[in-house]
Amino acid sequence: MRILVINGPNLNLLGKREPEVYGTVTLDDIEKSLAKKFPDVKFEFYQSNSEGTLVDYVQKGMSGAFDGVLLNPGAYTHYSYAIRDAVAALKIPVIEVHLSNVHAREEFRKHSVIAPVCKGVIAGFGSQGYELAVQALLKIIRK
Amino acid sequence: MRILVINGPNLNLLGKREPEVYGTVTLDDIEKSLAKKFPDVKFEFYQSNSEGTLVDYVQKGMSGAFDGVLLNPGAYTHYSYAIRDAVAALKIPVIEVHLSNVHAREEFRKHSVIAPVCKGVIAGFGSQGYELAVQALLKIIRK
Amino acid sequence: MRILVINGPNLNLLGKREPEVYGTVTLDDIEKSLAKKFPDVKFEFYQSNSEGTLVDYVQKGMSGAFDGVLLNPGAYTHYSYAIRDAVAALKIPVIEVHLSNVHAREEFRKHSVIAPVCKGVIAGFGSQGYELAVQALLKIIRK
Amino acid sequence: MRILVINGPNLNLLGKREPEVYGTVTLDDIEKSLAKKFPDVKFEFYQSNSEGTLVDYVQKGMSGAFDGVLLNPGAYTHYSYAIRDAVAALKIPVIEVHLSNVHAREEFRKHSVIAPVCKGVIAGFGSQGYELAVQALLKIIRK
Amino acid sequence: MRILVINGPNLNLLGKREPEVYGTVTLDDIEKSLAKKFPDVKFEFYQSNSEGTLVDYVQKGMSGAFDGVLLNPGAYTHYSYAIRDAVAALKIPVIEVHLSNVHAREEFRKHSVIAPVCKGVIAGFGSQGYELAVQALLKIIRK
Amino acid sequence: MRILVINGPNLNLLGKREPEVYGTVTLDDIEKSLAKKFPDVKFEFYQSNSEGTLVDYVQKGMSGAFDGVLLNPGAYTHYSYAIRDAVAALKIPVIEVHLSNVHAREEFRKHSVIAPVCKGVIAGFGSQGYELAVQALLKIIRK
Amino acid sequence: MRILVINGPNLNLLGKREPEVYGTVTLDDIEKSLAKKFPDVKFEFYQSNSEGTLVDYVQKGMSGAFDGVLLNPGAYTHYSYAIRDAVAALKIPVIEVHLSNVHAREEFRKHSVIAPVCKGVIAGFGSQGYELAVQALLKIIRK
Amino acid sequence: MRILVINGPNLNLLGKREPEVYGTVTLDDIEKSLAKKFPDVKFEFYQSNSEGTLVDYVQKGMSGAFDGVLLNPGAYTHYSYAIRDAVAALKIPVIEVHLSNVHAREEFRKHSVIAPVCKGVIAGFGSQGYELAVQALLKIIRK
Amino acid sequence: MRILVINGPNLNLLGKREPEVYGTVTLDDIEKSLAKKFPDVKFEFYQSNSEGTLVDYVQKGMSGAFDGVLLNPGAYTHYSYAIRDAVAALKIPVIEVHLSNVHAREEFRKHSVIAPVCKGVIAGFGSQGYELAVQALLKIIRK
Amino acid sequence: MRILVINGPNLNLLGKREPEVYGTVTLDDIEKSLAKKFPDVKFEFYQSNSEGTLVDYVQKGMSGAFDGVLLNPGAYTHYSYAIRDAVAALKIPVIEVHLSNVHAREEFRKHSVIAPVCKGVIAGFGSQGYELAVQALLKIIRK
Amino acid sequence: MRILVINGPNLNLLGKREPEVYGTVTLDDIEKSLAKKFPDVKFEFYQSNSEGTLVDYVQKGMSGAFDGVLLNPGAYTHYSYAIRDAVAALKIPVIEVHLSNVHAREEFRKHSVIAPVCKGVIAGFGSQGYELAVQALLKIIRK
Amino acid sequence: MRILVINGPNLNLLGKREPEVYGTVTLDDIEKSLAKKFPDVKFEFYQSNSEGTLVDYVQKGMSGAFDGVLLNPGAYTHYSYAIRDAVAALKIPVIEVHLSNVHAREEFRKHSVIAPVCKGVIAGFGSQGYELAVQALLKIIRK
Repeated sequence: MRILVINGPNLNLLGKREPEVYGTVTLDDIEKSLAKKFPDVKFEFYQSNSEGTLVDYVQKGMSGAFDGVLLNPGAYTHYSYAIRDAVAALKIPVIEVHLSNVHAREEFRKHSVIAPVCKGVIAGFGSQGYELAVQALLKIIRK
Repeated sequence: MRILVINGPNLNLLGKREPEVYGTVTLDDIEKSLAKKFPDVKFEFYQSNSEGTLVDYVQKGMSGAFDGVLLNPGAYTHYSYAIRDAVAALKIPVIEVHLSNVHAREEFRKHSVIAPVCKGVIAGFGSQGYELAVQALLKIIRK
Repeated sequence: MRILVINGPNLNLLGKREPEVYGTVTLDDIEKSLAKKFPDVKFEFYQSNSEGTLVDYVQKGMSGAFDGVLLNPGAYTHYSYAIRDAVAALKIPVIEVHLSNVHAREEFRKHSVIAPVCKGVIAGFGSQGYELAVQALLKIIRK
Repeated sequence: MRILVINGPNLNLLGKREPEVYGTVTLDDIEKSLAKKFPDVKFEFYQSNSEGTLVDYVQKGMSGAFDGVLLNPGAYTHYSYAIRDAVAALKIPVIEVHLSNVHAREEFRKHSVIAPVCKGVIAGFGSQGYELAVQALLKIIRK
Repeated sequence: MRILVINGPNLNLLGKREPEVYGTVTLDDIEKSLAKKFPDVKFEFYQSNSEGTLVDYVQKGMSGAFDGVLLNPGAYTHYSYAIRDAVAALKIPVIEVHLSNVHAREEFRKHSVIAPVCKGVIAGFGSQGYELAVQALLKIIRK
Repeated sequence: MRILVINGPNLNLLGKREPEVYGTVTLDDIEKSLAKKFPDVKFEFYQSNSEGTLVDYVQKGMSGAFDGVLLNPGAYTHYSYAIRDAVAALKIPVIEVHLSNVHAREEFRKHSVIAPVCKGVIAGFGSQGYELAVQALLKIIRK
Repeated sequence: MRILVINGPNLNLLGKREPEVYGTVTLDDIEKSLAKKFPDVKFEFYQSNSEGTLVDYVQKGMSGAFDGVLLNPGAYTHYSYAIRDAVAALKIPVIEVHLSNVHAREEFRKHSVIAPVCKGVIAGFGSQGYELAVQALLKIIRK
Repeated sequence: MRILVINGPNLNLLGKREPEVYGTVTLDDIEKSLAKKFPDVKFEFYQSNSEGTLVDYVQKGMSGAFDGVLLNPGAYTHYSYAIRDAVAALKIPVIEVHLSNVHAREEFRKHSVIAPVCKGVIAGFGSQGYELAVQALLKIIRK
Repeated sequence: MRILVINGPNLNLLGKREPEVYGTVTLDDIEKSLAKKFPDVKFEFYQSNSEGTLVDYVQKGMSGAFDGVLLNPGAYTHYSYAIRDAVAALKIPVIEVHLSNVHAREEFRKHSVIAPVCKGVIAGFGSQGYELAVQALLKIIRK
Repeated sequence: MRILVINGPNLNLLGKREPEVYGTVTLDDIEKSLAKKFPDVKFEFYQSNSEGTLVDYVQKGMSGAFDGVLLNPGAYTHYSYAIRDAVAALKIPVIEVHLSNVHAREEFRKHSVIAPVCKGVIAGFGSQGYELAVQALLKIIRK
Repeated sequence: MRILVINGPNLNLLGKREPEVYGTVTLDDIEKSLAKKFPDVKFEFYQSNSEGTLVDYVQKGMSGAFDGVLLNPGAYTHYSYAIRDAVAALKIPVIEVHLSNVHAREEFRKHSVIAPVCKGVIAGFGSQGYELAVQALLKIIRK
Repeated sequence: MRILVINGPNLNLLGKREPEVYGTVTLDDIEKSLAKKFPDVKFEFYQSNSEGTLVDYVQKGMSGAFDGVLLNPGAYTHYSYAIRDAVAALKIPVIEVHLSNVHAREEFRKHSVIAPVCKGVIAGFGSQGYELAVQALLKIIRK
């Protein structure tokens, strides 16, 4: 079981930015925690602030090397039709994950242009959301 | 640990309606499955087609008898400010769950008036979504 | 031939409210008149002011006991996605009927969220609209 | 009893276009069928693809030679304020008829600029809709 | 003088929910206080979380047993065309009351679909708003 | 001095339709009255219910045979970009005239797609509006 | 107890304009009536058709000379962000009053840009609305 | 015959601002020219940059001293509901005049909030528009 | 190979209108040029200012006499659902052509209601656009 | 070098209103500070709460007595087309200044109807914004 | 003759993604095919998933090394004002090409923010669209 | 004092593109000029056409190496929520600068998604805007 985990803009700041709010968990911690919790799964972790690079990463999902994708598109969620098109081209399941409850924030965060081509969405559970998404992916893949 | 599980309009049809699409899992099956998977949790399951009754059920969350709420508001998701207000009055965490990926369906299903006052949202994973939501609730409650 | 006739909010006032405008025909009169005009059809008549109860009534259409539904959703026409979902779950034909010409009234009455999942719509012909709808249903069912 | 039946753009294709979908009933067949079903009514049938000619036809309703109008404005339903004004000028009742359920199709077909000045609307019952409309007209005229 | 007082969804929580914000005044207290301040008026108090039941209550105003209605539709204010239709059917005056200043809250609370068919609106004065509304009703009725 | 006077849909009904409202003045009367009031001007009068024919008439303004155009586009005012394009192609001045004050009627009548390419607009003065427009044209032409 | 009463554009016409509709009560009558009904309150009454002067009057509320403001902004209600800013700067309570039920009139009257920074709103009770507003103010001030 | 002529903001600049565009005709010239062309009419000319003062001027029309009003509201045309209300209170006819063709300029100039309560509108004919408006007023008054 | 070429409103002016801008190429020249460049193709050329006649011309495409259609709907592009329906009824490919780049002009020209039912769109290349469209048609037909 | 400094509604409250937020700097202090920092510039300072008076002040810029204008239109920024027109009439440069960052406040403050006819905009720097604007003006004027 | 061909996000997948739908033609094939069909033209082919890199590529058009640009912006078509600005800076002609008929797909694909600054648009003809665009470019360049 | 200066897409063309319009000042010139004018400040200058790289540059502001940021996001101003999020994460002040007056250009340029999280905005003063922004930053930092 191989899962591609792709993180969008500003997620590299996780754990460094406002630790009193977001906690001190970093993307690296999440990666290690997933590896530990799901020892049978091989994860590949990517992060980029660039929309184009994120499209590149999503396209890796076409290689046959992965069984599913976990995607946190950050702010690109709300306008990146380029990432949407890349996701739509994949045949393996993609799950959109958000650390915060995007519905409880600014108006523009309530709309995702990528979710319509994903399998499902998980939002609001912090780093736990990644674990939930992996569980969901595993069940979908194993079906 | 006690969790209130509230299901909205037409969810009583689950398993009976288009079984080739939605499968043969019923609300009752979901209830039993949750009880089995989470033996330490005491669940109370409610379903109603009525907005007002759903408000009543959500208000049960104020009684002190529950630690969290799992809410699938069905079609009321998109316009029930009455349910929203009931959710907003709760002090225990509420998670909005949808069986289908609402973002991949009709335009009107992309907007939730209840999500902004929930802790988080899980959509698109069928009955597994209820399990994921319980896991999320447990983690939030135990924090 | 069995037809389910479902009437929404405030239709219980028919014949009592502004008789100089709406006439003195009551829902009860309509029921009797239909029974008389279509002796071969068995009608079941329901009225409720409650959206949830109307969902319940529409779900009766899944029981196999009916061949078609005649639905006047009253003001719920314009926002009840819950009723829409119930109608969409039926396999028997549903016809939306309105006593008045909803297009000639307030702006909000011009839009029906239920009509897209019905077989057809008849509006503006007072109680005669129910007869026309039964005729239409019979033809569809007998095809 | 004399009824003017006016058909808008592309309705001349009826029966020739996608017969597997729309059936093989032509406008001519509808005319003959109405004549047969309503032997006491004298029908005048018109069809045109031109908005201006349709305005001309509707204005025939001012001549005193007709007791009612049955109007299927086709695609002009959605933008012809010129036809609307012609209808509004008539003193005899006008009924808007659509073969298909316009509410179940593209977004732009959900709005009629003509219906607000008609007596009522019947949509979704194929050629039967013309018969229902004649019945409705007869009742209104005879009142 | 008989006045019907109808309270909508979540108003049963008054006094129990966030007492430091809303105070400890309950609906029951308001009822008692009104009875005391207006000894010549006979009040009937209703509360429901259900839109349909609220329509039922408003329809009581057609019985001839009341001289006026005081209506706090809660969250239904913003979308219940069913309640609006019930109010529009009454011949006795109806006043819309809100505890909070709805204009100072979320965008969706700025629009009332019921107010256009009421006599007037009072918002923002907490439980005192009910007294003001009764005074207003008395003056209108006595005119 | 030669002026082209073009009248749109339903203006042929002038004087025949609701004479108690619109008076008994016909388009023919207006033509005669203009001829009498402006003996030095040669008028050519056209009316059509057809958008295409109106485009043809406006194109006559390119022939060199006219010094100005007086255009009452009737209901086409609000959506005929085809007439707009024809007007925009003319080098002689065009004045848009309306018998009624279009701003005081339905919402859709407040917007003209043709006015932006006209010299000016006169609305609300009944048949006098034609005289005012001729005066305005004469002044513009003679400048 | 000192209350500032500020009236906006065209309210100087009260009692003179359409007396059969608005009655013969003038602003002056309202002032006298308030003085009589609330002998312990010292009122200062202002009226202006000018937005700027109304801003000046509202600013008087910063002087320390008043305990509350009763504001009927007339048509400025719907667009005067300048008056809104002046109200927002006050520390004493401001109540927005309208003689008519603004929700039952033209669409543009349904939105108030000033209400969000007021304490509350009273609309639809004619001159009685001023009395109700004074009562409300007194209760707020005395708290 | 007495006519009130009211000019709005920046019209005092007429003749001084961009004379190569707007010509050298001033408001004063227009006044003199009207007086000369209509010797039987007594004009009173006002101009103000202030919305409130314009409301005052329009209210002069209630004095009985005038038979009609010619109003060029300048930029207030597009948002002054205060002036609209003053115009609506008048019983004598009001004509809205614009020097330029407002429909051919910026988007915001296409909408007039005052025109719906005027008798008619004349736009695009420069200072001649005032003469046309006086002619129109005279005919309306003399009817 | 037989191709139907249909031109909409005001295209008859081509070459006569503003020759310094649009050049001196007429529709007739385009027809001759196409005939010369594609000697193996039999073209039928139509132009009309009338929407209804254009619908008639498009319907010719159902006759079996043509292999493809080249359509320049002129201003009707932006609102003619009647032409759209006619195009949608064809089984042979239709290409929408515009002489100018409609996206670089007024806002209303950016939206085509016909393009969604065409095979493709070519805009901005003047008369050359017709040649490109014929080439495209030939390739599609020959596939 | 002479610069006209014009301040809009409620700016007279500067320094008095919420000093802990806005500081104790008054408009007078700003005037003195500018005079001191730019000894070679002659400033004229105006403030008014009235839109009309602000139009008057802006028109002073046409007198030839000034080389540039610094304009803080306060709340009028968002709707005063009258001030916009006055600014557009000036030939000397105008700079729009805001004390606060209007983009970080309510939605309605994000849009300026005046900025499109100014030279530039400076917002968010408190009283320092006036100095920056003077510097900018000087550079533009001296070019 | 040198032409710059720039391809946007996900176009690198051409031929690999859903070959049964898009065919097996790759970008590389298109490049070779163009080179063969237009031996006198020197093409430079670029593709990137990154908006910024596409801006870089478009800026190459300023180098003097190219006579025209053929641009398929993929999903960036609908929101990349950055690419639009780069295109607008070019003095050589740019043609926007789309493989599919973007008007026949999701709503968001109907709007191009780049087309307004291009010479023209070709959409819906698959890889042939590139050839048509080259032909169009050649004609424009050679003029 | 260290200031980060970040320039967005197409700003690398400054001085080369349309020098008669934008002048011959390049980004490099601006950098040198700033260095000269503010010898006590250490500037770091970055430019990129890539949104992701700009996010990277903004994140440099978290390093502690800078006291403030001057940001010209170019076209990304209008849609880059990714850059907005990066700016929002900074604790040092950020000023948005635009060379041109964005309010006087196309509609889409009037809205900035980044300005709400900046300290302030300066637009319309060409390269001088950078100097003004540095002054503003210095004052804010030194406070």
